[in-house]
Order: sequence, then C-alpha cells, then structure tokens
Amino acid sequence: VRESNASMCSADLGEYRHFMLKEIFEQPQSVVGTLENRLGSDHVLPALVGAADALERLAQVDEIQIIACGTSYHAGLVGRYWIEANTDIPCNVEVASEYRYRRQPPRKNMLLVTISQSGETADTLAALEKIKESQGCLATLTICNVAESSLTRESDMSLMTMAGPEIGVASTKAFTTQLVALQLLMVLLMQAKGGDKAKIAQIVADLRKLPALIEQALDLHPKIEALAEHFIEKNHALFLGRGEMYPIAMEGALKLKEISYIHAEAYPAGELKHGPLALVDSEMPIVTVAPNTALLEKLKSNLEEVRSRGGELYVFADRDAHIIAADNLHVLEMPHVPELLAPIVYTIPLQLLSYHVAVLKGTDVDKPRNLAKSVTVE
Amino acid sequence: VRESNASMCSADLGEYRHFMLKEIFEQPQSVVGTLENRLGSDHVLPALVGAADALERLAQVDEIQIIACGTSYHAGLVGRYWIEANTDIPCNVEVASEYRYRRQPPRKNMLLVTISQSGETADTLAALEKIKESQGCLATLTICNVAESSLTRESDMSLMTMAGPEIGVASTKAFTTQLVALQLLMVLLMQAKGGDKAKIAQIVADLRKLPALIEQALDLHPKIEALAEHFIEKNHALFLGRGEMYPIAMEGALKLKEISYIHAEAYPAGELKHGPLALVDSEMPIVTVAPNTALLEKLKSNLEEVRSRGGELYVFADRDAHIIAADNLHVLEMPHVPELLAPIVYTIPLQLLSYHVAVLKGTDVDKPRNLAKSVTVE
Repeated sequence: VRESNASMCSADLGEYRHFMLKEIFEQPQSVVGTLENRLGSDHVLPALVGAADALERLAQVDEIQIIACGTSYHAGLVGRYWIEANTDIPCNVEVASEYRYRRQPPRKNMLLVTISQSGETADTLAALEKIKESQGCLATLTICNVAESSLTRESDMSLMTMAGPEIGVASTKAFTTQLVALQLLMVLLMQAKGGDKAKIAQIVADLRKLPALIEQALDLHPKIEALAEHFIEKNHALFLGRGEMYPIAMEGALKLKEISYIHAEAYPAGELKHGPLALVDSEMPIVTVAPNTALLEKLKSNLEEVRSRGGELYVFADRDAHIIAADNLHVLEMPHVPELLAPIVYTIPLQLLSYHVAVLKGTDVDKPRNLAKSVTVE
Repeated sequence: VRESNASMCSADLGEYRHFMLKEIFEQPQSVVGTLENRLGSDHVLPALVGAADALERLAQVDEIQIIACGTSYHAGLVGRYWIEANTDIPCNVEVASEYRYRRQPPRKNMLLVTISQSGETADTLAALEKIKESQGCLATLTICNVAESSLTRESDMSLMTMAGPEIGVASTKAFTTQLVALQLLMVLLMQAKGGDKAKIAQIVADLRKLPALIEQALDLHPKIEALAEHFIEKNHALFLGRGEMYPIAMEGALKLKEISYIHAEAYPAGELKHGPLALVDSEMPIVTVAPNTALLEKLKSNLEEVRSRGGELYVFADRDAHIIAADNLHVLEMPHVPELLAPIVYTIPLQLLSYHVAVLKGTDVDKPRNLAKSVTVE
C-alpha cells in the first residue's frame, strides 16, 4: 500500500457536521494523493497500474469496455468521452447488472475496465468473472479505492484511487478520484499508442493545477448554501449537460436523489425538445453546468428554451461564459478550467448543492434511507 | 411507394376521441403493413431495404452505429440488444445531438443506421451528414416513416415503416413499427452472415403472430383505464425493466412525461440499489414490465425491494410469471409472447396507461405543451 496524504484522513468528523461534507472538502487532498508519485515531468508513470509491462500491454488494446454501477458508472461515462476524444480506441460503458446478463459479440484485444469504490460491488465482480471465464478480453484493469479488495485481486492491473476511507453513503471524493484515475489511464493509453507528446505534457501540467482549482470551486460553499433554500420545497429537478458534462449532470441528479429525496433527472441538453420539455414549468428547477467549451453556445440556446417556458434556471458557468443573471436565471461563477478538468471541477458545486438541500430538509445525510454504502449483493 | 393497408389510415378521428388513441389501436394494422410483402416462408426478403445487393452489402458489416433522438432512440436501444444477442456484430446506439458534436475513433466496415419517424429530425440528419463527409462508414441505412424525406434521400438504403401518418405528437405506432423494422434488419443481418436457418425461420414465424398478440394486449384497455386513476394525483413515477425491456421502460416513462406531465423516470432494475431506491415511498408508483424471460426471477427480487420500502407497484406480467396481486401490488396479466416480441407487445399497455392518465388530468393529449411533432431545428 502506497503512503499518501490521503491515508491520513481519519474516520472522525473533526470540525464537520457530516462525513459527506468532510469528504467533499477533502477532495483537493484526495486528488493530490491520487496524483502523487504518478506524474513525470511531461508524462504519466506507467508503473501506477501495478504492472512492469503496462505500456506494452496497453499498446495492444483495440477496444475498451468499462463496467460499473451507480456513481462509478457515471465516472466511466466521462472516461469514455475522454478516451474516444484523445485516442483511436473505441470505448463502451455499461451498467454491470445489464452487461452480465446479456450476450455480447466477441471483441478483439479488449481491455476490460471495472470501476468500484469498494472493489466488492457484486454485479461488477460477476461481470468481471464472466469475461474472464469466456476469455473475452486481452487484459483486465480495475479502478478501485480499496487495496485488498476482490476486484484488485481478480484484475491483471489495478489503478488505485487514493481517496482514503469514504464513510458517507453518497460518494463524493471516490468519484472525483475515479475521474482523475480515468484521466491517468487515458494518458497512459496515449503514451502506449505513440500519441502527441506536447498534448500529453499539457494534460500532465493541467492535472497539477487540479487541487487548486477544486479549492476555488469549494470557495463557492456559502453561495451554494444560500441557493439550496430554493430547492427545499421542490419535488423535482432537471439537470442538463452536453458532451462529457452530461454524465456530470447525471451524477448531480443522483446525489440529489440519494440524500435529498428530490426526484432529479439528468438529460443531455439536446434531447430536451424530444420530450422532457413538456415537464418544464415554474415548479421545476433546472440545474446546468456550463464550462466555456465548444458546446457553450448550443447549451445557451437550450437554456433559453427552458426559460421561455417559465423554468427556473441555476447555472454553474465559466466566468468567461457571459451568462448574465436575470429573472429566473441564477448564475454561479466558476473558475476558468482547462476543458479536460471541467467534469471534475464542476462536480464540486453539485455535491455541495445536494448536501445543503439535504441538511435543510433534515434527512440523514450520511446514511440515506434504503441505501447501503457498498452493494455486495445483487 | 409501396401500397399497404397502412396507407389507408386517414387523418380523421373516426370513432376515437384523440389521434393518439386511434393510432394506438391502429398498431395491429401498422405492423401488418410493415411486414407485408417482406416475409418469405422462412426468411426475410432482402429487397425491403431498397437495394438489390442488400445481402452482399450487409455481409461486409463489422460494426453498427445507430443514431436517433427521443422515442426513436429507445427503439434503437432495443435494436442493439436484439442485434448483439443474435449476431456477432457489435452495435452501439447514441443520441444524435451527442454523437454529432464529439469525436469518434474510426470504426471498420461500419453500417450507420438512423431512425426517425419524420425523416427530418435535424440532429439525426446532421449526424448522418457528418459521417458521410468523413467517409466514416461502409453504408448508411435509415428506418423512417416518410418515403420522400431527407433521411431517405441521403441514405444508401431505406427500411420504411408502414405506420401511415402519425398525428399525435407522442409517438405510438411509429415506435412499434420501428421495432418491427429493427427486427427485420436483425434477421437480414443473420441471413447475410450465414446465421442459423432454423432460428431465422422461427423468428419469421413468430413475427406473423405479432398483430394478433398486439390485439390481445389492446384488450386490456378497460383495465388500464381503471388503473390510470391511481396516477392522476401523483407527481412522479419510476419505470423498471431489465435487458431489452429497459428501453421499453424508458419509452413508457417518456410517454407519461410527454402527455401527462408526470415526472416519470426509467431505471434498469439492477441499478435501483445504487441510488433511486432512496426515492421510493408510498407516493412513488413503480411501473414494471415482466415478460417470462430469463431475467424474471431477478426482476421479482427487485420488486420485493421496492415493496418492502412502501412503494406501490404496477406490474404488467406474463400470465405464467406467477406474480400474485397483493397489497400495493397490482398485476395486469399479459398474453404469453415469444421473447423477441415482448418489447413490442409490452409497449402497448404503457401507451394506454399514459393516454388515460393524460385524459383524466385533462391535458391536450395530441398536442402536449412545449413539444413539436417533428424536431426540425437543433
């Protein structure tokens, strides 16, 4: 087991009211722990997956299949956008309970990637076993937070997240460190396939800025606490995103479901007109994440559609996005972030929002009803 | 343009109160129209895609990418389960507004399949143009309901659904005929790849039974009308399914959103424990579709989880599924159907449910607020 700052996170609350809040604020440190000893000056160190011949193995990969459940599945969806945008390797992501029970056509030279905080998620483990039994892949790799878990034992390679113990049932720092791990894996794949060295060096340089950017996002805490009051009387919410921000909208919606018991649902913003727009009225708050990416203008026009139907909008936007607050349009200014870091940094305010709504509603934040921390049965 | 029974469906309401109800009841006829002159004694006639060399072209296909929006996207998701279960061709499905704006790794010998009722859906058309420009596929095929539409003009092959004009904004007969078309495409792919002839003959024989099975499902109409009263005071609903019934749950939820303005959301049943179970209480009706498939026992255990948390369950179940009505457990008995037809037949009661809830709530069933029939702008 690697020593890291993260391992010093203890299981007492300290100054925090709930473990979830403590774990949200631990994220800069968890990210430092997950990057520590893994970055060279302009590249990622291949040893981080625990295999001496990692680059040789990854060089042979022609396909990637990611399998996960819940929050880890959302991390996988972001990973797919990243891998397909920056390598020539097709990548699919599927919920483990679906993947394990259906037939898949054979794939050539497939890397199977499982993602699980605990490393004990029953469906994910069963999907891994199914593929190993059928010899349906070239190699297996797990992204996991527990070193001696079943998934790490059963996988050829392990990319450990160094989030430290996560006590809150709703995952926070495990999710953001999974995203960091997926970005490290993406860079390793670029290195293995002879990708653009300048681009790799830039990604590595950007990753070093991530803990400070998360700190800046955490500074929004008091503003988000005030915003949360708008949600306590609501029964619903829509979360919108485009591209790699769509899974972040999904994760934001899941958090609100899990701990605030508000029925929140995420949509890729371009699908609004194909149905969910019928739901929009003044009782349906709409939350959206708007980093200053290529899709910003498209997203802005989606937001106008919603506003013109009376929807109340809450937008976490890049300070350069030029989205101006107005009636029914609340804007929270986010730090400017490199495009690849946006999904990680924009997760922070959505975590804080669900946390504060839950606190105001008086739910059991760290142990929401009906849910267990680690789903070790089917 | 092919002559068929479907083309005789006129645009007046006849005995029906709404076009949506009329179109729901037209489905046996629309399916007859979509199968007519397309089935041989034990195989599917390749000419149905409008290309003399269809089988030679399809024999070269190594990958399939389906692109669609809204309801058509749900049809595509079912198609993926069918194609991957019955051929060795990997198949991906993506929302058009996402696909067109991101980079995809190159794929070899890819068949691009677009699905759209109108053939004019802006995002789907733009995705098709993007791929054609990059020469990123072997061939293009559209599943479409309008013969002289942009998608049919721009595609190498067209598999027309013979649903006749669809007036109601919420798609019904277009969806079920899209599913029939996808099953015809699946069989053509099996034929092109030298698949099991006995299996193909069985599928063709089963398809001939489909109109009668849809009639049997329509006979549930009065029971579903009575059931609808349970939903009018509800703000939410969960729809659960597993495997190829998960997209059917998604479509059922979308219908309820579109015309009843109830916030319904679908989940693959195995994901319940990873978050949405926190939402379940006596105010949250749960609708589920339970044909007598391999996944029935798994689904039953998911239903127990929900019931033990106070959720009220509405189950459309095979008469042989042995799900017994009880407190908070309403069971509607469905005809026994071949596994491949279940997604089509189980769509019918979900359409009727959303229709009757909307009528009881007094919404504008055929023209729900904020929505257009054909989304010809981004």
